[in-house]
Amino acid sequence: MNDTPLFGGIEAGGTKIVCASGTDPEDMNRAEFPSGNDPEAALVPVIQWLRGEEKRRGTFRALGIGSFGPVDLAPPSPSYGRITSTPKEGWRNADILGAFRRAFPGIPMGFDTDVNAAAMGEHRWGAARGLDSFVYVTMGTGIGAGIMAGGKPLHGLVHPEAGHLRIPRLPGDSFPGICPFHGDCWEGLCSGPAIRERTGISAENLPADHEAWKLTARYTALALANLVCALSPRRIILGGSVPRAGLLGREDFFAMTRKTVLEALGGYILSPALARGLADYIVPPLLEENAGVCGALALAREAWSETLPQNGFSSR
Amino acid sequence: MNDTPLFGGIEAGGTKIVCASGTDPEDMNRAEFPSGNDPEAALVPVIQWLRGEEKRRGTFRALGIGSFGPVDLAPPSPSYGRITSTPKEGWRNADILGAFRRAFPGIPMGFDTDVNAAAMGEHRWGAARGLDSFVYVTMGTGIGAGIMAGGKPLHGLVHPEAGHLRIPRLPGDSFPGICPFHGDCWEGLCSGPAIRERTGISAENLPADHEAWKLTARYTALALANLVCALSPRRIILGGSVPRAGLLGREDFFAMTRKTVLEALGGYILSPALARGLADYIVPPLLEENAGVCGALALAREAWSETLPQNGFSSR
Repeated sequence: MNDTPLFGGIEAGGTKIVCASGTDPEDMNRAEFPSGNDPEAALVPVIQWLRGEEKRRGTFRALGIGSFGPVDLAPPSPSYGRITSTPKEGWRNADILGAFRRAFPGIPMGFDTDVNAAAMGEHRWGAARGLDSFVYVTMGTGIGAGIMAGGKPLHGLVHPEAGHLRIPRLPGDSFPGICPFHGDCWEGLCSGPAIRERTGISAENLPADHEAWKLTARYTALALANLVCALSPRRIILGGSVPRAGLLGREDFFAMTRKTVLEALGGYILSPALARGLADYIVPPLLEENAGVCGALALAREAWSETLPQNGFSSR
Repeated sequence: MNDTPLFGGIEAGGTKIVCASGTDPEDMNRAEFPSGNDPEAALVPVIQWLRGEEKRRGTFRALGIGSFGPVDLAPPSPSYGRITSTPKEGWRNADILGAFRRAFPGIPMGFDTDVNAAAMGEHRWGAARGLDSFVYVTMGTGIGAGIMAGGKPLHGLVHPEAGHLRIPRLPGDSFPGICPFHGDCWEGLCSGPAIRERTGISAENLPADHEAWKLTARYTALALANLVCALSPRRIILGGSVPRAGLLGREDFFAMTRKTVLEALGGYILSPALARGLADYIVPPLLEENAGVCGALALAREAWSETLPQNGFSSR
């Protein structure tokens, strides 16, 4: 293993922290730890596991961290590398990048949102190979989107927070939504916790013929149509626990969503992908639940390659 | 004038076609022609004027064309350079790039949406200098957005069509909207023609205290908040005739819009720009109504510089 560079990847999610050591999805050890509500305590076993991997496999060339957010991605900022206004109180202001810098001093570190990381994973090894502009959406505990534009993860004022898109309400639906900031934004209506709050049943156990599935697919379609109008992505990868929740079946969720996205676009945007019914446009992640942690490895690889001498003269 | 390269720029809008010859906004001749409903006839005086400029000032090194749309921006496509599904019937499938290629054979041509062109103009000479990711919005006959991401205009499946974002309806507002595709999308509710349809009065003549201004600002704020969530732009430039329509006053329109964008974001996204009340975040175009045609000159300049030998080794 000593001739190929070894990387560490960390996907910090609101529920669990997934880590990996390796070079790519085919050569990767993987472990999971609960996120809990105390970041310092939660990161102890993560760092221990990564150190163990170094003993077993050799020294990491770089680490990549994809974190739930919002996070501060601006290197000059005093809060760079921290989680900011999350509803998850114990994690607010958590210095997640700093914790890994202290534990693994002196190696390059890539840092981005969990969803931008997942997008990078799907770009390098998954359902978005060869596409320069696409969106990776995850629907689970929250809803988020990672966006690649011109082959790079999109940053800006902060980073995209597409789960908080505002969408029209469907007639007759009085559920107020659960987002503490916006009530009935996309995440407030369609996240796993929103489905449970609406129905009293978890998404995993919600019967396939429950009306809430139709509502979830239709609201999701309005949000995806908004992403198509705002960004014109070449593909939308739709991951997370909600689209693959048990009783409905992922194929049915995708079929409902594709149909209602076409309805929401109303024939305005013309493209062969739309004419084909979106079957190869709105797709599940190829790396499945490993998109995020594989993306963290991709982030590590980028951070490392930026330090290589030939890259001093490249376009990056 | 012979030592500086001369460019031609064409901004093809739904109402008028603006053209320019020159190198930058400080050195630019400008003319306007009606778009009408027959593209072939409409382009005759445009091409005549440009040829006249060549006689007066020298040969163009390149042309840049920013067109209303939707347009086909994919060079390998058979309909590249054409307008596609516009509601403006006479212009549907108009081969706008082809017309200029036939009239000015052999010189490089840049082609993009009118709003991407305007974004390029503001990026090079206006309110977005030094920003790699921002949005240029125009609200007039239609609503559109040009998007720069990582320093380049964003293309993708097609191109952004942010005027067709779907937004929540405000309580008590039963106006159905006028978009032939979506009814009450942003453009269907807030374009100039929508304001006239709602009130029976043109935006220019609508009294400053008319309720429709508040509705227009609040719907616009919901759409801009969606762009912030989807794209996280570093700035939003808001141009077009609606924000500067007569009786209300542009400052009031911007003040109402900024306030309601902050309300719509609900404190979720944290950034110094938001803490400052968005005064330097949602701004008018510095090039005013010349943003588009200046952007067309910028497009021409890019098309020309891509043909220069040293650029064979650059990052483009």
